[in-house]
Amino acid sequence: MNIIDNPNKNDWEKICKRPTFDFSELKQVVEEIINEVKANGDDALIGFAEKFDSVKLDSLLIDENEACLIDEKLEKSIKTAYKNISTFHKSQITESLNVNINGAKLWRKSVAIESVGLYIPGGTAPLFSTVLMLAIPAMIAGCKNITLCTPPQKDGSIHPAILFTAKLCGITRIFKVGGAQAIAAMAYGTSSIPKCHKIFGPGNQFVTLAKQLISQEGIAIDMPAGPSELLVIADKSANPKFIAADLLSQAEHGADSQVFLVTTSEETAKETIENVLIQIEKLPRKDVAQKAIKNSRVIVLDNMESCIEFSNYYAPEHLIICTEESRELSNKVINAGSVFVGHYTPESAGDYASGTNHVLPTNGFATAWSGVSLDSFYKKITFQELNKESLLELKEAIEIMAKTEGLNAHKNAVSIRFKE
Amino acid sequence: MNIIDNPNKNDWEKICKRPTFDFSELKQVVEEIINEVKANGDDALIGFAEKFDSVKLDSLLIDENEACLIDEKLEKSIKTAYKNISTFHKSQITESLNVNINGAKLWRKSVAIESVGLYIPGGTAPLFSTVLMLAIPAMIAGCKNITLCTPPQKDGSIHPAILFTAKLCGITRIFKVGGAQAIAAMAYGTSSIPKCHKIFGPGNQFVTLAKQLISQEGIAIDMPAGPSELLVIADKSANPKFIAADLLSQAEHGADSQVFLVTTSEETAKETIENVLIQIEKLPRKDVAQKAIKNSRVIVLDNMESCIEFSNYYAPEHLIICTEESRELSNKVINAGSVFVGHYTPESAGDYASGTNHVLPTNGFATAWSGVSLDSFYKKITFQELNKESLLELKEAIEIMAKTEGLNAHKNAVSIRFKE
Repeated sequence: MNIIDNPNKNDWEKICKRPTFDFSELKQVVEEIINEVKANGDDALIGFAEKFDSVKLDSLLIDENEACLIDEKLEKSIKTAYKNISTFHKSQITESLNVNINGAKLWRKSVAIESVGLYIPGGTAPLFSTVLMLAIPAMIAGCKNITLCTPPQKDGSIHPAILFTAKLCGITRIFKVGGAQAIAAMAYGTSSIPKCHKIFGPGNQFVTLAKQLISQEGIAIDMPAGPSELLVIADKSANPKFIAADLLSQAEHGADSQVFLVTTSEETAKETIENVLIQIEKLPRKDVAQKAIKNSRVIVLDNMESCIEFSNYYAPEHLIICTEESRELSNKVINAGSVFVGHYTPESAGDYASGTNHVLPTNGFATAWSGVSLDSFYKKITFQELNKESLLELKEAIEIMAKTEGLNAHKNAVSIRFKE
Repeated sequence: MNIIDNPNKNDWEKICKRPTFDFSELKQVVEEIINEVKANGDDALIGFAEKFDSVKLDSLLIDENEACLIDEKLEKSIKTAYKNISTFHKSQITESLNVNINGAKLWRKSVAIESVGLYIPGGTAPLFSTVLMLAIPAMIAGCKNITLCTPPQKDGSIHPAILFTAKLCGITRIFKVGGAQAIAAMAYGTSSIPKCHKIFGPGNQFVTLAKQLISQEGIAIDMPAGPSELLVIADKSANPKFIAADLLSQAEHGADSQVFLVTTSEETAKETIENVLIQIEKLPRKDVAQKAIKNSRVIVLDNMESCIEFSNYYAPEHLIICTEESRELSNKVINAGSVFVGHYTPESAGDYASGTNHVLPTNGFATAWSGVSLDSFYKKITFQELNKESLLELKEAIEIMAKTEGLNAHKNAVSIRFKE
């Protein structure tokens, strides 16, 4: 972690380069998995469970009585998170729009997507927190069919914390299917797993690529994915120990994660690096974090204006602002997935329990994409009802515009209604 | 146009099959165009204008003084549409969310996408109406950089109605670039054309494929595209002449358009077909409409429940409901882009002037996508600010959840803030 001191703006593009992953080698493998699921459905899924998860499954659907006993303190924690995430996502409910323009009634209604698929990674970390982030808004929106896929453990069970959380959210259709095969199953349907209209959730490179491939065939996905990332803006008011811990919390996600510190203070920069080196030693995921730190940068800039400009240029998934005027500075954010304001707002708060969603745009996608929210589970459908009088108000405008565009049948559809 | 009488539900999939277009032959051509634009920027664009539009351009950017004189009646019509579309899209402005959970302040703000690109087809029809549908919400959202590309006419000018409409909307950066090369230019930027974060607009197969290809590289697009389509639900209260005119208004769009009539009345079905055959004869775009009619279906079902079920299964871009209880039936719509309710609400109204947007999900995408709206030009960014007390409220929950997920650095980021 070297300090880059006041880089020239021409170098920002190079500095902001994300770690890239070459999917070309995986492509054939993932395409084969998808085709196998398309062709052989459930049988393919049972075969892949044996091959990739080393488990022979009798049924893909979980047994209703499957154990989901968890520690009492964990249960209380998950319920706290559940409550806060529910509160914030319920606040996103909007009423239908109703507009009357010269007698023409226009309205817009949010209608839940009927069938959604949620993917929850198992593997090294059982991401039950992601169950909350996807299942809560899906339930609030009122999606009729919610399918959850997550890989089985070696003994054929699902991690009890994932199961507990899913049941807490009201999800009952839980399937023991992981990886690219789970994405294919939800995209195309099998005899057990219903075809979904939109597929959500994070995953490894196989899952990411599978989502990319099925989205090219017109199945909706939450958003394109890339490695996780964090940018911290700090001035000398910030505590370097806190910053170091925040940077490492993101770095431990994966070897391809990327973290940035952008600061006006050379001293803060130096002390943060020192603290990263101290704190990293005690981490169970030290190896991963060390690799991620190699992708990472500490940048010193002259003033806060430049720091925020740099951050908007980079468009981080997570942005922490710990400066004297954090709140004021946060008003200048244009590109970021989610923003954490002040010295006592670690990213972990939003990752788990404060109420905001942690499924966010990475890889610079924050320039044009939003994180998952209640909106992600709705379509907004427009309606209109005119009567003879209100159509008459628009008659000439429509006829002239349609004619000019060379679309005479469009014109006729109005004219004919006044010929009777 | 034969009548399909009470088809078995097992046949719905086959009946609802969309006309498909095989892009594989175009792929190489479009990829070459994209690569040429990436490599040679403006020079490539000037070359393509000569090759495809038969025009030698001195400058890609329009001259400020370029003529946009149009007929007075057309001007008035466009201004009527402008006013209504502005009213409906302004009604979509939402206030920032603010939620306080146990002292933790959470908020969400809509922030305009900084740079957007609008593509407007020229070709056989100068689609100035689409300028309204894209430029109005982009301006209301407050997008900072709005770029519009549209192909030049043979004399090197832009169609005056497109130019007039763009200027009316306040768009000044208008470039004479069409086709796949316009999409590539906005996706990657050239010396004249700024790189855009999100690209909007309809187009021919070259444009559609170019949008598909650049979206695979992470540039946002409005939505995946397919041929235009309309489904009409009618009972015996409907006027077959009106239905025929509505069906033809969609059929004239392209040979690959698709229209459906779904009705409870055999008589309405028969009379509609008769009227289609009469009306089609007088259409300037008769050839196109005739081809589209071949992709089209008239279906008689037993009751209205089945009609709406069929429509939700098909998920039409446009849905017209002209039945006795149109309004009531419209409450049961789950999958549709935009819905036109009652006997005096032709699709043309929404295509041009009533106020709703006409850029809508085709090809069954209405199951998971919404049409273009003000939302399409925003990202919704979440923010949070905690203090020591409100973080303490969440401390245990975050620590326990993070530890259970095996993410100790996430836990540390909270713990360390209470060790000082």
